[in-house]
Amino acid sequence: MIKKNIIGFSISSEGDSSTQGFNPKTGEPLPGDFSNANYEEVNLAVEKATEAFETYRKISGKKKSLFLNAIADEIENLGELLIERCCAESGLPNARIVGERGRTVGQLRMFANLISEGSWLEASIEIADMERKPIPKPDIRKMLVPMGPVVVFAASNFPLAFSTAGGDTASALAGGNPVIVKAHSAHPGTSAFIGSAIMKAAKNTGMPDGVFSLLHGSGKVVGQSLISHSGVKAAGFTGSQVAGRILFDLANQRKEPIPFFAEMGSVNPVLLLPTALNLKTVEMLSTSITMGSGQFCTNPGLLLTLESDLLEQFINDLGRALEKIEPGVMLTEKICKTYYNDVGLSLSNQDVKVESEFQDKNKLNIASSVLVSVSGESFLKNPKLAEEVFGPYSMIVKCKNKDQLNNILTTLNGQLTGTVIGSEDEMRSFILSINQLEKKVGRLIFNNVPTGVEVCSSMQHGGPYPASSDSRFTSVGTMAIKRFVRPVAFQSWPDSQLPDELKNDNPLNIWRLINGEWTMD
Amino acid sequence: MIKKNIIGFSISSEGDSSTQGFNPKTGEPLPGDFSNANYEEVNLAVEKATEAFETYRKISGKKKSLFLNAIADEIENLGELLIERCCAESGLPNARIVGERGRTVGQLRMFANLISEGSWLEASIEIADMERKPIPKPDIRKMLVPMGPVVVFAASNFPLAFSTAGGDTASALAGGNPVIVKAHSAHPGTSAFIGSAIMKAAKNTGMPDGVFSLLHGSGKVVGQSLISHSGVKAAGFTGSQVAGRILFDLANQRKEPIPFFAEMGSVNPVLLLPTALNLKTVEMLSTSITMGSGQFCTNPGLLLTLESDLLEQFINDLGRALEKIEPGVMLTEKICKTYYNDVGLSLSNQDVKVESEFQDKNKLNIASSVLVSVSGESFLKNPKLAEEVFGPYSMIVKCKNKDQLNNILTTLNGQLTGTVIGSEDEMRSFILSINQLEKKVGRLIFNNVPTGVEVCSSMQHGGPYPASSDSRFTSVGTMAIKRFVRPVAFQSWPDSQLPDELKNDNPLNIWRLINGEWTMD
Repeated sequence: MIKKNIIGFSISSEGDSSTQGFNPKTGEPLPGDFSNANYEEVNLAVEKATEAFETYRKISGKKKSLFLNAIADEIENLGELLIERCCAESGLPNARIVGERGRTVGQLRMFANLISEGSWLEASIEIADMERKPIPKPDIRKMLVPMGPVVVFAASNFPLAFSTAGGDTASALAGGNPVIVKAHSAHPGTSAFIGSAIMKAAKNTGMPDGVFSLLHGSGKVVGQSLISHSGVKAAGFTGSQVAGRILFDLANQRKEPIPFFAEMGSVNPVLLLPTALNLKTVEMLSTSITMGSGQFCTNPGLLLTLESDLLEQFINDLGRALEKIEPGVMLTEKICKTYYNDVGLSLSNQDVKVESEFQDKNKLNIASSVLVSVSGESFLKNPKLAEEVFGPYSMIVKCKNKDQLNNILTTLNGQLTGTVIGSEDEMRSFILSINQLEKKVGRLIFNNVPTGVEVCSSMQHGGPYPASSDSRFTSVGTMAIKRFVRPVAFQSWPDSQLPDELKNDNPLNIWRLINGEWTMD
Repeated sequence: MIKKNIIGFSISSEGDSSTQGFNPKTGEPLPGDFSNANYEEVNLAVEKATEAFETYRKISGKKKSLFLNAIADEIENLGELLIERCCAESGLPNARIVGERGRTVGQLRMFANLISEGSWLEASIEIADMERKPIPKPDIRKMLVPMGPVVVFAASNFPLAFSTAGGDTASALAGGNPVIVKAHSAHPGTSAFIGSAIMKAAKNTGMPDGVFSLLHGSGKVVGQSLISHSGVKAAGFTGSQVAGRILFDLANQRKEPIPFFAEMGSVNPVLLLPTALNLKTVEMLSTSITMGSGQFCTNPGLLLTLESDLLEQFINDLGRALEKIEPGVMLTEKICKTYYNDVGLSLSNQDVKVESEFQDKNKLNIASSVLVSVSGESFLKNPKLAEEVFGPYSMIVKCKNKDQLNNILTTLNGQLTGTVIGSEDEMRSFILSINQLEKKVGRLIFNNVPTGVEVCSSMQHGGPYPASSDSRFTSVGTMAIKRFVRPVAFQSWPDSQLPDELKNDNPLNIWRLINGEWTMD
């Protein structure tokens, strides 16, 4: 395990502080002191990335795909060592981490496939028409190109899939950008393992020195100096709204502002239509609320429904179901403290009623699930109640009528997801509410739960602010690559000097828009 | 001519100040006092747009296309009245304004065609696979949806094509967003004519009240309060870097930041390779530099070339050619004053040499073309010399060798365009320079000039900052619509409740990505 910073093909430990891993289940430190990067190391990583960009941006999609596939292979080659360390650092169970590794290598291979083929580049060709009046039409061709060094801020809650070799890194590398990862301090050992796998893959596939770096350290020193560095051209982030906004502001206050995509979580409202108040829904929701100790960006934290006789029974059933699920450990002591603090703030509101009993509250870093209820009127009066509580917490809002439900939906902030549980007929009679919900979210789900984000072309993981900083992009699925590329047009450019993607005879055999029509010609 | 603000289907003049049109050729005021909007009118326009969004966002592409085509028709119906007023307010010649009207209605009809068809919505479908292990794959479908009220800041230099019914308005309306235009104070009468055409088209095609508003007033009152209004969800701007940055900062400092696309112009470097130093190039460049009195975002303001014996003759030829072109009037007195001020600043640098004689400098608002030269060394020492001078000004930089040329290209800011003039063989021997150029620009041009921006699918009009605020988007061409839409995914959503674009039987017959493959099935 490399305990130093990985800067291109070198390792470096010039800083005078370090990061220690901890087992959240026991509170015990884990082996390894990971050297925090100092300012010189930050600069060096950016310089190397800038230099690597000169080569990397011209490497073909086919060759870059070998690199991404090699990263996936090297991650699998880490075997049990990686799984054990990751479980120890995160407190997450073995099955979850094995599954998350599958998702992580799956993402890398998905992007490898995407760029090996090449139609994603939006190649577009307008053929010249020298006879056009009043002025001739020039030949214009356009495609997506990389932007330059990208900084990735790793998330704590997916130590593999949203971290060192997660979706941000995979999509930025796939797009042709060197990546500098700011390791998350909650899993330095996992980061180091993955970082060494990426370095090895880069060397073995002939990528330039500097195409990847991994820096340990604090958000204040390493994170903020990376986002403000003039050599950095874009960044991706998954985490809290507070940290995301600080980085967003730094990215935009630069002399040269850069695209910064932050996925900052949400409360993921669930609309329980009348027929949804049954035991099947209880089972779906109790599982979803407690999954991964509630540490999902898509955790269903807000259940909106109309008052009814059935509702009290449903709430009771959901509370009892939650109590029966064995509570899990949280990722870090800090996250657990924040959870109980936020739960306490919610409960300090006299209109908020607890609907489930606390379990194991006093065990180290264990998150007891909490179900609370509140009236629609009280919810509307207290905007604080609509804020995310990160953990296995959910709030049922009992709405007096459809108007009140619509009012609540109108006042909600942007969300990653919105879920509707009920029948198709009910959807028609709640169409006004569903229309409001659609305006607020990036993904709508019917008769299922928001947790579980499929990695595919049709996924949207991002939503109106503050769910994400820019609702036009996603951090999951193939389209995540669009965050880190920009179009360049070539006008009257000689065929011999055009990128292969835009050459007359379409040597890569990709889909292209020619005079506005899609074709593989 | 409506001299009040147009707020949806109403007109309003509650403010206590007004905007006056002027003829820059004579300095005389033009008929009409245009009432400036006050804060209440700004709020009313946003409220109406928000209300209109509820209806407008659900109107089909086909029906919206009737609205856009009707705007184009109504603009043509304005006939000579529009052309005369626009020429009088802008000082631009009749042929240019007639041509620009053609471009403006052409853009509207292009977007009408785009949305009438529908493949631009990036409909993407992942079909469920309930047998997949370890977890079933859900049905997920995604498409682009509108964002909400969009504010458009009109530009002075294209009083039709980048103003009230210009590319920003056309693309935002096409995307399904209500639009509020902040009229440019340099052409209030032109804005009023176009505004009335849009209002009429909206009424005649059954669009909701509030789908369009036109507000007169200052950037400080009307502009800044619009960009900061919580009901506004995105904005487009074309203008100066100073004004663009102020609005960019306001857009990002909001509690809920919004996408703000600013096109802020650039110096559009032209790389003159050795064989380019001939009379054909002189003719192309002298025409391009003086076109529209140099008031184009794509004006070639920086000519980079290697020192040579031929170069002195070329500079002399270009200077003489520029002197022979009759100088034109500038758009406003303020723009003309700024032009001579910026030229003066350039000339105050003792390393900068004037290469053409001033013509008609003292005629009202007339812009004499100015050609200057400077050594590569001096240019590198003075970053101020790389800043845009808005008007018929261009600077030749004489580089000692290829290394110095590359250094200069490396230090340049982001640009809308980069041009290469020379032979295909020379391109190979200057590949390092061309590679640097590509990193800095949104559009590359070979053996032509950067002025003249073709409106089509393959156009990229936008570039790395400060050419535009976000290099991932364009303000010209069909893809300009992407600035104002966001993806929404529908998971396991019933077919009957899906938008037509995502229904199983593809009733709109559009291109869709199904399980990662493009098809019209």
